[in-house]
Amino acid sequence: MPETRLDLARIRAAREVIDPVFLDTPLYRCEALEPVLGCAVSIKLETANPVRSFKGRGTEVVASGLAGAVVCASAGNLGQALAWSGRGRGLDVTVVASRHATAAKLDRIRALGARLELVDGDHELARERAAAIARREGIRLVEDSLDLETCEGAATIGLELVDAATSFDAVLLALGGGALATGVGHVVRALAPGTEVLGVQPAGAPAMTRSWHARRVVTTGPTNTIADGVAGRRPIPEVLADLLVVAHDAVLVTDASIIAGMRLLLEHAGLVAEPSAALGIAAILEDRDRFAGRHVVTVVCGGNVDLGAYRHWVR
Amino acid sequence: MPETRLDLARIRAAREVIDPVFLDTPLYRCEALEPVLGCAVSIKLETANPVRSFKGRGTEVVASGLAGAVVCASAGNLGQALAWSGRGRGLDVTVVASRHATAAKLDRIRALGARLELVDGDHELARERAAAIARREGIRLVEDSLDLETCEGAATIGLELVDAATSFDAVLLALGGGALATGVGHVVRALAPGTEVLGVQPAGAPAMTRSWHARRVVTTGPTNTIADGVAGRRPIPEVLADLLVVAHDAVLVTDASIIAGMRLLLEHAGLVAEPSAALGIAAILEDRDRFAGRHVVTVVCGGNVDLGAYRHWVR
Repeated sequence: MPETRLDLARIRAAREVIDPVFLDTPLYRCEALEPVLGCAVSIKLETANPVRSFKGRGTEVVASGLAGAVVCASAGNLGQALAWSGRGRGLDVTVVASRHATAAKLDRIRALGARLELVDGDHELARERAAAIARREGIRLVEDSLDLETCEGAATIGLELVDAATSFDAVLLALGGGALATGVGHVVRALAPGTEVLGVQPAGAPAMTRSWHARRVVTTGPTNTIADGVAGRRPIPEVLADLLVVAHDAVLVTDASIIAGMRLLLEHAGLVAEPSAALGIAAILEDRDRFAGRHVVTVVCGGNVDLGAYRHWVR
Repeated sequence: MPETRLDLARIRAAREVIDPVFLDTPLYRCEALEPVLGCAVSIKLETANPVRSFKGRGTEVVASGLAGAVVCASAGNLGQALAWSGRGRGLDVTVVASRHATAAKLDRIRALGARLELVDGDHELARERAAAIARREGIRLVEDSLDLETCEGAATIGLELVDAATSFDAVLLALGGGALATGVGHVVRALAPGTEVLGVQPAGAPAMTRSWHARRVVTTGPTNTIADGVAGRRPIPEVLADLLVVAHDAVLVTDASIIAGMRLLLEHAGLVAEPSAALGIAAILEDRDRFAGRHVVTVVCGGNVDLGAYRHWVR
């Protein structure tokens, strides 16, 4: 396998600094989903922890190496996780988010004691603002997917997948900034080379998927998707380079399929998934033939929803 | 501590025969619930596994010692778990359930390949029918809470609670047949003697709680609660004797509080809990003063719901 920025020894070392509450998450076959999906489906559940998403794995790695102050831009989950990890270590955490972010995520960031700055714009504007704060205050900027710790934290999920008794034919990963897909993908490609690695992105926020297919950074105009956690417009070149190495494919799905996926996860698995966490199920729904008869695992990567919106989606 | 039928060495041995998919379940503090409940709350989550309840722990122990055929009565979760454990070991599993049991549970029992017999009556009639089948066919009858394996399986949750980095002031346990409360209670009383052990039962199915307070078996007329998983009328004397040793108290809660508990778990924890799994939260809601400022852990013991009924409850 060509090189990525990731390294198995560093990923194994990352596991050692992550609070165990984020590790060894449930991994189980969910047969009740299978008649609908036409393939064997296993779930890697990253929502049953204090921040209800996988992001705690990465922020634990980030925070373990820090003192003082730190700032990040976030659609909500990274910020919540950084606030949690920072609080435990006495860090001064600032999170910059869009004013239009999921209210439940913003509420939790505040409740965890972080300073929250809202911008009148999308996630890309929040990224710019966070970078400006870091420069002005001379503090650490955490850039999701660019900073290796965020990828290494996510990659620890990959270690747990390849250590499972079952081997999988394909792993379906939400694709946004790219930390989850490149992190897990790196481990799976290295240690379970027979497993297909697929990134899944909403058609309304296709920048990284288009970039992967074009093999160069493609930016887009405004995003249009309910999957707030993966709605970026400007892929990071270093992350794209890693994704080109580890992903076998990157696919786009409609918001209608994402909603259908959230419904299936609720009805047949009893799981509350946020839109980004249903991308894998949506990908199966959109291309049943591709997965027919195979054993697929998907990471249910977050469960932070505004209940009103969620009820509307799954009604 | 006076003796119960349980034994730590046997419980530790039980862990060894349980499929790891049921073990080491998430245990985490859920701060988003705390402003509402007025105490620190941790969740032990038993729903993220192939049968969506804690019952797989016990049926794994049962099935590991069996060959041939087995029958049980079940409100749905034990039957589903026994079907799962039996299928993996080539057992011929029969489940007897009430025709009025949760449809989603009955569907899964059938889907897992068990023979399902429905009775026109409640869970006590199903118990009688299962016993009759066992006698007639000369096969093993699994009696939930009476059979030590079911208590020992549940008790492995207790091992995980006492091994946690946090110590708890109180553990709140759904009380039905009694396997969960006596199993977990035995371990907690033995290894974390400072922790209060509380059983929680619906006011509409109060037989075991009344028996605990009377210190003798008290049976009741028909039950009237949405908490189908704990709706028994005839406590088993041996189980009551154990409960008298391990429980500090047994309390009753209304269905209105159970529904409020399910809503809170959905809204603030993103968890789909069946009514029995919300009993602990309901107990806090009904007696905030008792728990104020303490750290409480509750076992979210099952998540099998009929979605129509669930939507109605949490709307």
